[in-house]
Amino acid sequence: MNRRAAFTVEPWCIRETELNLDDLGSTESVFALSNGHIGIRGNLDEGEPHGLPGTYLNSVYERRPLPYAEAGYGYPESGQTIINVTNGKLIRLLVDDEPFDLRYGHLDKHERVLDMRAGTLRREVEWRSPADQAVRVTSTRLVSFTHRSVMAIAYEVEPVHETARVVLQSELVANEQLPEGGSVDPRVAAAMHNPLQALEHDCNGNRITLVHETRHSGRRVAAAAEHVIEVPEGVKVSTNWGVRPDWGRLTVTATLRPGQKLRLIKFVSYGWSSQRSLPALRDQVAAGLTGAIHTGFDDLLAEQRQYLDEFWARADVEVDGDEELQQAVRFSLFHIIQAGARAEQRPVPAKGLTGPGYDGHCFWDTETFVLPVLIHTAPRAAADALRWRHSTLQKAKDRAATLGLKGAAFPWRTINGDECSGYWPAGTAAFHINADIADAVIRYHGATEDDEFDREIGLPLLVETARLWRSYGQFDRDGWFRIDGVTGPDEYSAITDNNVYTNLMAQRNLRAAATAAVSYQTEAEELGVDSEEISAWRQCADSMFIPFDEALGVHPQAEGFTRHAVMDFESLTEADYPLLLTMPYVQLYRLQVVKQADLVLAMQLRGDAFTPEQKAANFAYYEKLTVRLRPAPSGGAGPARLHDHPQGPAPAGGDGRQAGHLPAHRSRAQPRRRARDHPPR
Amino acid sequence: MNRRAAFTVEPWCIRETELNLDDLGSTESVFALSNGHIGIRGNLDEGEPHGLPGTYLNSVYERRPLPYAEAGYGYPESGQTIINVTNGKLIRLLVDDEPFDLRYGHLDKHERVLDMRAGTLRREVEWRSPADQAVRVTSTRLVSFTHRSVMAIAYEVEPVHETARVVLQSELVANEQLPEGGSVDPRVAAAMHNPLQALEHDCNGNRITLVHETRHSGRRVAAAAEHVIEVPEGVKVSTNWGVRPDWGRLTVTATLRPGQKLRLIKFVSYGWSSQRSLPALRDQVAAGLTGAIHTGFDDLLAEQRQYLDEFWARADVEVDGDEELQQAVRFSLFHIIQAGARAEQRPVPAKGLTGPGYDGHCFWDTETFVLPVLIHTAPRAAADALRWRHSTLQKAKDRAATLGLKGAAFPWRTINGDECSGYWPAGTAAFHINADIADAVIRYHGATEDDEFDREIGLPLLVETARLWRSYGQFDRDGWFRIDGVTGPDEYSAITDNNVYTNLMAQRNLRAAATAAVSYQTEAEELGVDSEEISAWRQCADSMFIPFDEALGVHPQAEGFTRHAVMDFESLTEADYPLLLTMPYVQLYRLQVVKQADLVLAMQLRGDAFTPEQKAANFAYYEKLTVRLRPAPSGGAGPARLHDHPQGPAPAGGDGRQAGHLPAHRSRAQPRRRARDHPPR
Repeated sequence: MNRRAAFTVEPWCIRETELNLDDLGSTESVFALSNGHIGIRGNLDEGEPHGLPGTYLNSVYERRPLPYAEAGYGYPESGQTIINVTNGKLIRLLVDDEPFDLRYGHLDKHERVLDMRAGTLRREVEWRSPADQAVRVTSTRLVSFTHRSVMAIAYEVEPVHETARVVLQSELVANEQLPEGGSVDPRVAAAMHNPLQALEHDCNGNRITLVHETRHSGRRVAAAAEHVIEVPEGVKVSTNWGVRPDWGRLTVTATLRPGQKLRLIKFVSYGWSSQRSLPALRDQVAAGLTGAIHTGFDDLLAEQRQYLDEFWARADVEVDGDEELQQAVRFSLFHIIQAGARAEQRPVPAKGLTGPGYDGHCFWDTETFVLPVLIHTAPRAAADALRWRHSTLQKAKDRAATLGLKGAAFPWRTINGDECSGYWPAGTAAFHINADIADAVIRYHGATEDDEFDREIGLPLLVETARLWRSYGQFDRDGWFRIDGVTGPDEYSAITDNNVYTNLMAQRNLRAAATAAVSYQTEAEELGVDSEEISAWRQCADSMFIPFDEALGVHPQAEGFTRHAVMDFESLTEADYPLLLTMPYVQLYRLQVVKQADLVLAMQLRGDAFTPEQKAANFAYYEKLTVRLRPAPSGGAGPARLHDHPQGPAPAGGDGRQAGHLPAHRSRAQPRRRARDHPPR
Repeated sequence: MNRRAAFTVEPWCIRETELNLDDLGSTESVFALSNGHIGIRGNLDEGEPHGLPGTYLNSVYERRPLPYAEAGYGYPESGQTIINVTNGKLIRLLVDDEPFDLRYGHLDKHERVLDMRAGTLRREVEWRSPADQAVRVTSTRLVSFTHRSVMAIAYEVEPVHETARVVLQSELVANEQLPEGGSVDPRVAAAMHNPLQALEHDCNGNRITLVHETRHSGRRVAAAAEHVIEVPEGVKVSTNWGVRPDWGRLTVTATLRPGQKLRLIKFVSYGWSSQRSLPALRDQVAAGLTGAIHTGFDDLLAEQRQYLDEFWARADVEVDGDEELQQAVRFSLFHIIQAGARAEQRPVPAKGLTGPGYDGHCFWDTETFVLPVLIHTAPRAAADALRWRHSTLQKAKDRAATLGLKGAAFPWRTINGDECSGYWPAGTAAFHINADIADAVIRYHGATEDDEFDREIGLPLLVETARLWRSYGQFDRDGWFRIDGVTGPDEYSAITDNNVYTNLMAQRNLRAAATAAVSYQTEAEELGVDSEEISAWRQCADSMFIPFDEALGVHPQAEGFTRHAVMDFESLTEADYPLLLTMPYVQLYRLQVVKQADLVLAMQLRGDAFTPEQKAANFAYYEKLTVRLRPAPSGGAGPARLHDHPQGPAPAGGDGRQAGHLPAHRSRAQPRRRARDHPPR
């Protein structure tokens, strides 16, 4: 999506009719399939060429050191990075001994379709080999919403003009070679190189099983594949298989006349755990496979469509008169359900399971951008996401204690609940994540009136986050409750006093904690809440200081912001964006320039705290300060892309690199540019 | 000095009469000798035990990577660390084959005296070996102020009661084994392990020469030693020598009766360069040695005393009625002249050449704390220190350009002029260093009226720093000139708006640049200064915004500071200090707590900008917010030590570790504590 990919505008599909190899990194993200439990990038079936091969399992990460030139008290030292696990989607094809590789020969037809009602990625290709042998390849892929551990591919090949000998190699491959571009820190590179250690490999008929373990984080990962082969009557098929610690391969050979199809249906099941034993995992994937084969590919497709029919019945937003926007809205909803549907008490990462962007971390985006959608469209998934947060509450309480604070301080970025942010001004200081979690609790209860959840999960989250605010803020000499030294949503400012977004969200958090503690008195008392504390929360909320610039008639994003110099946008060129790759923080922070909506987001989430006049004035003021939209090039399709903003209209997937971690060699005076629409946070 | 070392109070000496092996790290710094060109820690002659062995040459450093968990634009990637070079002070003694080692046997007498008029460290020891053989050892050491490249030691040993066979081994040793405690980053550890690569080794009679080269920074280092041996007539002396790439050794053996002394005079010369060839350096140290031997040890002593007599005639401050303070003042002056005397257009590091503290870096301390003393006591040394800054002007201009600024942005910490700060909120953002350099230029000219220096060196420094201020600050809607997003001297605050110290010093800088540009019109025009620029500087200065808290009647250190919560000092215990090892920055920055004098320092340096009433009110206000003095324990001698403040009454030397670089394994929830009076910045 760097250059505009040739997607057609249509209501329920994302269709690509031309293949641009330079766009593979982006299209692999757009065409990624996931159910929130497992995720596969839209890599070509044959594996190469690729932008970045990717298969991800929710919470399967590797630990790696977080290095500091100058360390400080409370800095996290251990990071977590999602890893590319055993690739189950690989099906290589050879035509008369020539590998099917789009870098060679000639592509007569290409189409990939992400069907948002079917929940499939369908591909149809007509290719002529360098020896002019033409074949038609059709594949249909799904990651099942109903069989949580299963993905399946139906792969068909037929000669177009002449009889051809075709060989299919269906594989499982661990420790795939990844493109260059990792960390320059050798400890980090070592931790991320070949992250899977082989434990067991097995092949039994058409079934291949590989079991691995991560080196440092202790995650055991099992993958198993089984195959169904279909050919026309009378066509002779040979199969053989091989398996090694890091790969397993089923080979199918047939000689086909034009019109004769070889069809291979591949079922793959994944299982992983930090606790369950190797035999338990081996059995788990065998059971997953057996279940999938029992259902069969056609019924998997039918269940997939039924699941999505039900989803769209609840979730669809119809946009009249703007087909492009209609498509964009559905695409966003589709990727959100893909990210959240079966996460089931595991985190929902900022990029779902579409790539390693942001290291696969979960941020406040989950509660602020994803859950408001899931709460109304897939409330069980939303509840599970909050249950995951609740499962990390003890870690958040420990983190607060490390920071000298009461209550809970949830991590800015994490997979397992431990803080992974290596830059505290935009991590630890962004305490608003705690109020964002509280906000999701409030919204969930508002939509579902699920008192049992609220009592068990919501109350402790509200209470411990309210405690954080009370201990971090203070009453000033005029009786205002101030929250100093925080970073709001906008990452082009940091460590400010009285960020309006933060203070308003903390106010809501404090009030909700007080209300919940009254509603669930017994449970609140078990948490040590007494009437003094409830009344203190109310007092903090009622006295919350919200700065306002009387002269300009607008709210400063944080105290003093509107006195800062305004970024001279006129002096900037395209090459200056994204700004964080061409300007030091020391400049960005002193200027009025906004990366993420901050005050404007406060107006959306706390609309009750602003008059209509203030909203209009604030919007007009901040719109001019926010990094710009790039206008759509003439004739281009799809929504305009933000220059500088990681929350685009969809979780557009990995940028193929460790987002959020500029490799050090890029941070020289003239750093190399990264893909424009995937800046690090 | 962690526990109070037993120094006697006397006017011209620092005398230690008891040896505490646990205090060696501190006493090695107190007893360090230096002329600003070479520096040796006060290690025991025999090398062990030690706190940290140390021999330093001004600007001989190694480069090492600066790692970041999350890198950013403009972050420096290459650090510099002063290295321990070839040790020339080592003289081992064996008595009847028993090594003289204070960890064994019995110490009957111990005295070390730093004589601040003689410029020597004198040691007298009576020791009984485990076999009860008693010897008296006397040594006198100097680092010559008059022979810049030379240190010399006179070492005497005599039996006390019975005839003894004594063996002296006088050595040069490169790549000494250092105590544990370096970086956990393997790249950093590798860069700092055995930093010297051998180029040449030679021994010729009593003269040993070793030439090495640093691996990455390309510094060639030559060290040569020559010896004079004196024994009573009739005593037979045997000598032999050996040399290897990393060591050279002269061995002297004699059998002595009680009262018979073996005296070894060791002259050592150092030379180093990043440009001069190996033969040139080899010849340079040979010449240095020859010159020293030509002068002879007694005349080196005489010249040393004469140099210091002249220094004290200019510099001495007599304190009536407080002998302890008298001693402290002279100790401070002595270490300042040791740090600056012969630096000669190389930097004056924050800890002089007394240890590897702060990596051997030069900070704003040089211009703000060292040069005001040197300007009046050793003005040529002060001029040379500013010439060194001027020699790095192009690097500072390049750095400003990287940051998107005009003029020059001098580095917060450096050896070679390149920024080495790995934590930008307390490094890059501390722009006040530029005004501090300008202030030293102004002071130097005020004291010397040296117009030629001012024209050649002062003017460009003033002009380029004034340009920085004009480009970083801005005129606000009310016409004030604001400087937002800076860190003042206090490192318990960062990235603040309108730090009073910074704004007042920038104001002086801008005015001085305007005045100098008018005075030296031709030279100013060559720098591109025109009347518009001069008038703009004056306008910035005249409109400088200085916040004032009317309600409290005090200046906030920076805008908003006095609205922050006050640190609850009452809740703190001894174990909480230094605070930066027990509290995260995110807490320190939101609170009113002061590490370095900031507003109070502004009142000292810009006393003209405050009324007497303001001074009194400000002092009373900030004194309470500043990390406390620890009261002297009863019966202890010497000045009270600051808990938390790196500018103690003297450059007390290395803390034996890479100060400023908390090893990462210490930054967990409960980091290990470092020596209390040497916190990192």
